[in-house]
Amino acid sequence: MAALTERGQTLAVAESLTGGLVAGVFTAVPGASRCFRGSVTAYATELKSLVLGVDGALLATRGAVDADVARQMARGVRRVLGADWGIATTGVAGPDPQDGQPVGTVYVAVTGPGGEGKVRRLTLHGDRDRIRRDSVTAVVDLLLSELTENARAKDTEHHGGI
Amino acid sequence: MAALTERGQTLAVAESLTGGLVAGVFTAVPGASRCFRGSVTAYATELKSLVLGVDGALLATRGAVDADVARQMARGVRRVLGADWGIATTGVAGPDPQDGQPVGTVYVAVTGPGGEGKVRRLTLHGDRDRIRRDSVTAVVDLLLSELTENARAKDTEHHGGI
Repeated sequence: MAALTERGQTLAVAESLTGGLVAGVFTAVPGASRCFRGSVTAYATELKSLVLGVDGALLATRGAVDADVARQMARGVRRVLGADWGIATTGVAGPDPQDGQPVGTVYVAVTGPGGEGKVRRLTLHGDRDRIRRDSVTAVVDLLLSELTENARAKDTEHHGGI
Repeated sequence: MAALTERGQTLAVAESLTGGLVAGVFTAVPGASRCFRGSVTAYATELKSLVLGVDGALLATRGAVDADVARQMARGVRRVLGADWGIATTGVAGPDPQDGQPVGTVYVAVTGPGGEGKVRRLTLHGDRDRIRRDSVTAVVDLLLSELTENARAKDTEHHGGI
């Protein structure tokens, strides 16, 4: 949060398996409204398309647990909620497999103001609660690493210009 | 959840001060996708209007912590996410007052398929975390009481027809 507030930048969150928990972590902090715009939990698969603009054909062929779906969710929520950064989670919390993917398969994604972005594929273990909590940690870590990298790139750019 | 699943009905959640925690409770349950459509955390005030369709003039005059705002958030998320039932939370988690309302002032709302609906005003105590958690409990209770009442009304209607 501090990393975003210092830059005067904002965040939007798109969630599937974490179902609100990522937003819950960011809004736990007093003053969250300075950088947290909001979130969409697109739990029903069609809402990923209807609300976040994920390609319907992609969802139909690959299912909701997919790297490109995660990437498009992050981009979509950034656009729909008008934020500088968008992050997303999609995956299988269990107890049953979903869309042909085993329990614990999770994708987390981040996208930023320069169009940069990253997706990580995770293979998580434990029960539903554990998988959801570890997914929250993973997407927060991904955002932080991307913010750091983005700051370093800007710094290099700045020094290069002197 | 069972009360909804038995009826084959669905739920959508709109959140402000609870910031994802209400959705987090519903999606903690395996099989949540049978009745849980999704949620919108409209943390930035303008998103209550842009995404959920809350009247902008109402927000401008009364602020976000208001009974009618809560009612319109519930109606809006029900419509936008295509669910049978919509529930909403808005209020002041603290540590600072907001929109002229003291910390602990919270409104929770429910709206159902027959257009029925209810809003409750709460005066909660404790720290930010406690106020958020008590707000989650209050909106879940409100939904359950409305589902029970709705079932009783349907039952009376049915017997009345015999």
